[in-house]
Amino acid sequence: MTIQDAVSELGNFLGERLVRSKAELEAHGRSETHFPLTPPDAVAYPHDTAEVAQIARICARHGCPIVGWGAGTSLEGGNLAARGGVVVDFARMNRLIEVSAADMDCRVQPGLRREALNTELRATGLFFPVDPGADAALGGMAMTRASGTTAVRYGTMRDNVRGLEVVLADGRVIRTGSRARKSSAGYDLTGLFVGSEGTLGLVTELTLRLYGLPEAVAAATCAFPAMGPAVETVIATIQNCIPMARIEFVDGQSVAAFNRAAGAGLPEAPHLMVEFHGTESGVAEDAARFAEIADEYGARDIQRAHLPEDRNRLWKMRHHAYWSILQSRPGATAIVTDICVPISRMAEAVEETQADIAASQIAGPILGHVGDGNFHAVLMARPDDPADLAAARAIAARMAERALRLGGTVTGEHGIGMGKLEYMQAEHGEAWAVMGDIKRVLDPANVMNPGKVVPQP
Amino acid sequence: MTIQDAVSELGNFLGERLVRSKAELEAHGRSETHFPLTPPDAVAYPHDTAEVAQIARICARHGCPIVGWGAGTSLEGGNLAARGGVVVDFARMNRLIEVSAADMDCRVQPGLRREALNTELRATGLFFPVDPGADAALGGMAMTRASGTTAVRYGTMRDNVRGLEVVLADGRVIRTGSRARKSSAGYDLTGLFVGSEGTLGLVTELTLRLYGLPEAVAAATCAFPAMGPAVETVIATIQNCIPMARIEFVDGQSVAAFNRAAGAGLPEAPHLMVEFHGTESGVAEDAARFAEIADEYGARDIQRAHLPEDRNRLWKMRHHAYWSILQSRPGATAIVTDICVPISRMAEAVEETQADIAASQIAGPILGHVGDGNFHAVLMARPDDPADLAAARAIAARMAERALRLGGTVTGEHGIGMGKLEYMQAEHGEAWAVMGDIKRVLDPANVMNPGKVVPQP
Repeated sequence: MTIQDAVSELGNFLGERLVRSKAELEAHGRSETHFPLTPPDAVAYPHDTAEVAQIARICARHGCPIVGWGAGTSLEGGNLAARGGVVVDFARMNRLIEVSAADMDCRVQPGLRREALNTELRATGLFFPVDPGADAALGGMAMTRASGTTAVRYGTMRDNVRGLEVVLADGRVIRTGSRARKSSAGYDLTGLFVGSEGTLGLVTELTLRLYGLPEAVAAATCAFPAMGPAVETVIATIQNCIPMARIEFVDGQSVAAFNRAAGAGLPEAPHLMVEFHGTESGVAEDAARFAEIADEYGARDIQRAHLPEDRNRLWKMRHHAYWSILQSRPGATAIVTDICVPISRMAEAVEETQADIAASQIAGPILGHVGDGNFHAVLMARPDDPADLAAARAIAARMAERALRLGGTVTGEHGIGMGKLEYMQAEHGEAWAVMGDIKRVLDPANVMNPGKVVPQP
Repeated sequence: MTIQDAVSELGNFLGERLVRSKAELEAHGRSETHFPLTPPDAVAYPHDTAEVAQIARICARHGCPIVGWGAGTSLEGGNLAARGGVVVDFARMNRLIEVSAADMDCRVQPGLRREALNTELRATGLFFPVDPGADAALGGMAMTRASGTTAVRYGTMRDNVRGLEVVLADGRVIRTGSRARKSSAGYDLTGLFVGSEGTLGLVTELTLRLYGLPEAVAAATCAFPAMGPAVETVIATIQNCIPMARIEFVDGQSVAAFNRAAGAGLPEAPHLMVEFHGTESGVAEDAARFAEIADEYGARDIQRAHLPEDRNRLWKMRHHAYWSILQSRPGATAIVTDICVPISRMAEAVEETQADIAASQIAGPILGHVGDGNFHAVLMARPDDPADLAAARAIAARMAERALRLGGTVTGEHGIGMGKLEYMQAEHGEAWAVMGDIKRVLDPANVMNPGKVVPQP
């Protein structure tokens, strides 16, 4: 009963779809951020749910860890095999199974990426709005409860997964949810699995909610003299029921990185980037009311992005922020923080964080989804400089503490992964033990992504 | 270790706030629908969370069932003490604790009713939109994952509870969620408790999402020659991204009941009742686009409800539908069905159900939340006529079967309670066993609302 026994039995079962080459293991041990290389013992490429169930049964028999893998875009190492074992890569389970236009939903396999889904949907007039920036796989997005720039309007994966097919640790296959838009029939297992980071089972199919492509879209950027008035603008916009589809905050340092990497030519001051979805007259009215509010709070340089290509450039720039910022410190690695606070405390949270970073030896541009109270500091460190890394970790820890003090959470959308387990007790108290109880009853041998999310045995 | 031992110890602890009078026991054993009188052994009126925790500890020690009670408006007997024991009535835990206008949320105790909450919120410009018709308590609404007429726009309790304080079966008190608008920090325990019908713990505090009161509201009714075109109208409206705040279907029999009970004076044909929330120009545009679509599908008698009092009368009539319909058969009791199907199958589901009822000996007007695919048949039976009751039960069972065949759920919003346990295996398959596993680990002695939701030991 060892990992090697499991790998050997899996090899007999999957043939060349169980891969153990150094290159493949390293490709599945690499993180987008600062985590050290953590290669698994093997990578499996199942074709269907029945194969995933058989993989689970084999791993259960040998006590071998199983970790799901989508597009490899996790920022917290949620997809790294912290205790070795088998990575199940869903690259060959990446189909759009079915679209129902009347029900505005679709069924997909977990390896399908969000951009590919939206490309396939184009002819239907529908789209899937959740947009974490990276071209992530939908299974991985569900497992980290991903969100991103559009959550303020369309919600997170919690709100947009209607149902799941899940392979449990013992190989049983269950279906959660239904095609109905709502249900009161028992516990919300869909919601329990979404955000569980693969610790309770492997998702093999998702039913996703879709939306009609808006008839009209309007976008704009505007600069502010400081962070505070930008946040006040957002609060006032929400309270006036102006429906924003996106509302992003970026600080002056982030804008500087955009200017360098994408020739944005923006003033190097705090900015809001906003988008409205609706009818032609509706978005015009929304944009005008927003501009009035922003103006009251001292906004300058309000620039409308009239053409689709202008908007694409705007959001591409925002999506590439992490890479643009990293480029500003060649050779640097980064700890990307992800706290989310009540929006009434956001200005305070950002200002304290900015002061903390300014007093340190490292750089850390700040940007985030201000409509949700969620923001990121990209804390850059030279990977070979222990003092840099220590400074980044200390700032991240103080941000986590600050988020909790202000009534928020240590992660708005990136998940716990390998990076945030140490904050779970402080965030949840006794409720963290309850999460551990649920994990134990569904995965008593602790083979599903061990080392993550719950208290460790 | 008996219920009587628990009751006696609880009496010492709570004094006159543990009530055992026949009148009180019967008042807490009565259902709004067809369930027989099911009085508990005692009714407890705690003042605060610490008292609820102590009640739980005493009951755990004696293996005594505990059942939460809000306003007593459950339609499925979810609040009835099926195996005796203690009902915890939250009537004295009914405060609005705190409102944060900037965060658009509030903290409430579980006994607060939704109408009282909205009355208290009036000065803030905010409101809590979930509206099941009855003036239910917010704790009970969370526990049944209630929704109602506004879910198509504002979602259900699943979408509008940000966090909970819960007393577990062993008396531990946990907090789930936070004031942040989203989080990826571990399992979604809030979502697990919402809809759990008190089988996993007793909710002692809720953090609820609030919304800005719309600047303008427009409402209308229109008649259709048949059910099909009414549903097609709704599908087309959704696909055209016209944001409806409410969209209700009522059949001709329901309209007849409205006419008799409320002097509605509507043609006795299938109707849609619709409402839009937004700006003055926005709702005018929405209403006009909706009228165009309805017109294409053959709508007649489009009547706008221009004045607030007209709209109040309209929705009051809709909210009182159950009572108006019951009045049409004096002395009758009712089984109120609650299936929810993919909206693409709704016309089919309603038409098959209408034919089934027409072929039976009983009457059963149909009405529902067509934007969600959720509808009710009020199956009326003379309580002393076994053939009537058998006919109603058989129709309800066929509706449940139909819902599942069409990809839906046996209950969109009323919950499982005492009435729908028999359908859980068919709806969830192996996932129902997983619900049972979770129940067992959180409530190993099965004291929290035993006999409900999960497989019974």
